[in-house]
Amino acid sequence: MTEQTPFDPATLRFDAAGLIPAVAQDATTGEVLMMAWMNADAVARTLETRRVTYWSRSRQAFWVKGETSGHVQELVDFRVDCDRDCLLVTVYQTGPACHTGRRSCFYTEVRDGVEVELMAPEE
Amino acid sequence: MTEQTPFDPATLRFDAAGLIPAVAQDATTGEVLMMAWMNADAVARTLETRRVTYWSRSRQAFWVKGETSGHVQELVDFRVDCDRDCLLVTVYQTGPACHTGRRSCFYTEVRDGVEVELMAPEE
Repeated sequence: MTEQTPFDPATLRFDAAGLIPAVAQDATTGEVLMMAWMNADAVARTLETRRVTYWSRSRQAFWVKGETSGHVQELVDFRVDCDRDCLLVTVYQTGPACHTGRRSCFYTEVRDGVEVELMAPEE
Repeated sequence: MTEQTPFDPATLRFDAAGLIPAVAQDATTGEVLMMAWMNADAVARTLETRRVTYWSRSRQAFWVKGETSGHVQELVDFRVDCDRDCLLVTVYQTGPACHTGRRSCFYTEVRDGVEVELMAPEE
């Protein structure tokens, strides 16, 4: 398929707070690393800078992933879903993606009714 | 790590509408297929039946994925993220996951400022 349309962040479907969920996947391993939120400006900044930039709901500020920790996400691929209300970014992840020091935020599995921790902090 | 805690859906962090985003990933290929929403009951039903069950915001009803289309998702692995406000389900996906007939809902890539369709409907 070669259908092409100019991309405008304003055409995404944001929630009442002006945010859209963004799932980050490791471009090398395929592992799902985290989910966070972007607003239209964070989308534009991510595409312009190729540094994945979220919107921090707790701090109400741009959150250039890894800006303080060094655990940056270099954008490889930016995708929009069919409903235009969710994003998928594949990234080259430096260091652990999770603030707990684990590779992925999804380190807890529910198995036979109990929570099992699948990975330890890397640092 | 072998730390284990009994899992209670009520301990998840739901939004103001009582919902939590759930990312579905193909257990075989690692492809991210879709993102939809669950409430506490949908979480419990998914774990009990091993058929991934979302909450349809448009229909305000349980949405047993594939119930009408046959494109069911058999649960392989159910994970909770560090903040307990996002879920990751890995699944055996029968047929395409997307209602458009595509394998994944994330079939649109933004490349050099234009939208590129990466996959065609399978049927």
